[in-house]
Amino acid sequence: MAAARLQSVPTPDRRLLVLTEGQFAVHDAKTAIGLIRYGREPVVAVLDSTKAGRNVDEFLPGHDVPFVASLEEALALPEPPDALVIGIAPTGGRLPDAWRSTIRDALAARLDVLSGLHQFLGDDPEFSAAAAASGARIVDYRRPPERMETAVGRPHGANKRVILTVATDCALGKMSAALELAAAARSAGHSACMVPTGQTGMMIEGWGVAVDRLVSDFLNGTVEWLVEQGETRADWVIVEGQGSLDHPAYSAVTLGLIHGATPHAMVMVHKPGLLEHDFEHRPDASYPIADLPDFIALHERVAALVRPSKVVAVALNTSLIADDRDARRQIEATAAETGLPCDDPVRFDAEFLWSDIEAAVEALPWV
Amino acid sequence: MAAARLQSVPTPDRRLLVLTEGQFAVHDAKTAIGLIRYGREPVVAVLDSTKAGRNVDEFLPGHDVPFVASLEEALALPEPPDALVIGIAPTGGRLPDAWRSTIRDALAARLDVLSGLHQFLGDDPEFSAAAAASGARIVDYRRPPERMETAVGRPHGANKRVILTVATDCALGKMSAALELAAAARSAGHSACMVPTGQTGMMIEGWGVAVDRLVSDFLNGTVEWLVEQGETRADWVIVEGQGSLDHPAYSAVTLGLIHGATPHAMVMVHKPGLLEHDFEHRPDASYPIADLPDFIALHERVAALVRPSKVVAVALNTSLIADDRDARRQIEATAAETGLPCDDPVRFDAEFLWSDIEAAVEALPWV
Repeated sequence: MAAARLQSVPTPDRRLLVLTEGQFAVHDAKTAIGLIRYGREPVVAVLDSTKAGRNVDEFLPGHDVPFVASLEEALALPEPPDALVIGIAPTGGRLPDAWRSTIRDALAARLDVLSGLHQFLGDDPEFSAAAAASGARIVDYRRPPERMETAVGRPHGANKRVILTVATDCALGKMSAALELAAAARSAGHSACMVPTGQTGMMIEGWGVAVDRLVSDFLNGTVEWLVEQGETRADWVIVEGQGSLDHPAYSAVTLGLIHGATPHAMVMVHKPGLLEHDFEHRPDASYPIADLPDFIALHERVAALVRPSKVVAVALNTSLIADDRDARRQIEATAAETGLPCDDPVRFDAEFLWSDIEAAVEALPWV
Repeated sequence: MAAARLQSVPTPDRRLLVLTEGQFAVHDAKTAIGLIRYGREPVVAVLDSTKAGRNVDEFLPGHDVPFVASLEEALALPEPPDALVIGIAPTGGRLPDAWRSTIRDALAARLDVLSGLHQFLGDDPEFSAAAAASGARIVDYRRPPERMETAVGRPHGANKRVILTVATDCALGKMSAALELAAAARSAGHSACMVPTGQTGMMIEGWGVAVDRLVSDFLNGTVEWLVEQGETRADWVIVEGQGSLDHPAYSAVTLGLIHGATPHAMVMVHKPGLLEHDFEHRPDASYPIADLPDFIALHERVAALVRPSKVVAVALNTSLIADDRDARRQIEATAAETGLPCDDPVRFDAEFLWSDIEAAVEALPWV
């Protein structure tokens, strides 16, 4: 077997400055939002001059993080940052040219630079020279493990339970649902972990693989191996999903996760009110969000091509519904429509959904 | 858009020596068999000491190619080879250690070395030094284009027809069926091309992309772009499929082809008599070949998640059936079972199946 290494976050007590210049919005700045919501390392500021003087709290209530206009302003904070994080996850994963000077300056100021872009910053001669000169580090979270193995059909450990989050679109909250459910499982006294499969999840959890960067022939196989790592960490293994089975651009990654993880059960993430896929390339064409009951049945059919699995719950992202009571009504409607336990584990407590999921998984004939 | 380049075979009138040492068999030596059957460049010998003195004709009637025991023997032929081709496509795509000295010697003798392995021979310091010293070239067909683009939902050209071969397993004959159908279409007077998506098809046709080597995030997008190249070459674009939708290791690649190519129609390739998937890792577990009518319906359902498509014919690989009349009976039985035109376009004339496919595609509501 070829040598293989999981990425890991080297410094546990690092203070982060998150760069989103001109692109801070709950949807576009997925990495920034994820780190602010779930990260273990404190975010001391968001660098975005278009919002300077304001606070993240306006967008994400309960998260008191100032926006700053410049790197200098961040470095002058009472608790200055140790690292600069690229806070966006653009389609195609390339660095905006305008950000180069900020990265160069951060490296010169000896801040580590953490990136989840496809374009590896550590391979950029200018950045690597700047890092070498100051002693700062560049961490490219999407760099894949050096592993060239196809799937081998590994059975799960006898006492292990594997759950994968799937969804009706990308960028709906599969990572958040997985994080909330793993936390709820731990609160309930279980050994549970979230298996990060994307750059933001990796930054939060400190391990994992950005599976969309893998060579396609090794996608199923590396996911299989990643789940095996999860099983060494906990009994309940909640795998972060990616994309959606019907997304024109990312469906292959989604299927690699389903057939590579061979989950005992899946949790479907869905965002009521969203009508069209996140696919800006074809405003003239329609890429509608799937009908939930049909789409759930299709996931079970497609998963069973390799190993049986069942969608045991729906995790709703009710962020488009302002009122809590309206959100509750939508949750009840979706539960009735699908015949499955349903809740919004980010907006409300995840404990209830977790306890339904736990019972449903233990009752599966193949568990 | 990032720069991107299709691989191309540089020398049109090259004579090939195909290396299969100890592994020549119709199944394992897919690349060797494909080049002998369909290649435009002559194969002057197969280097396999375990079969020295014998002839490929024993295994593939009608193909008079001698086996030789050594590189020296090949170089002493009346028409010596100009290039050495790695003739196997092993799982994981790594070079057998025992073959290193043969490759070194071939490069020293100024033979080009052509490889479809995942392990790039051009990146091996010893091989690249040997090539530089003699002036020989190393071509790694699996090296991906320098392109980082996700799918954009491109519509097909108005007069273009895109057909994808899919299958009930890997290594069943999706490439052969695509080559035969493209040739039959040309014989019928159409402008038609086969779009190579694997290393053997690329060696045969002189262009293409080995899609299983692509970064997963760019798989659908690069397939979409590759089909666009096909549309500049011909009106009927027959895309070579890879893997199978239910293969534990390769399903992601298959779905990337379906959603990236968005074919108007699909041709299902199936091998009667084959009961289990090509998946040697789990001899204890069962990975049965799918039921054909169900599997066809599932392909149409999954393709339609992005764009409508129909399986318009079944291309049978009847190689497990010795007698031609028995093969004909199986073809009739499969046609009755599926309600679709059916034939073995490799064993028998492909013209009949092509004409049924052509009529069925032109009748599709979305064409």
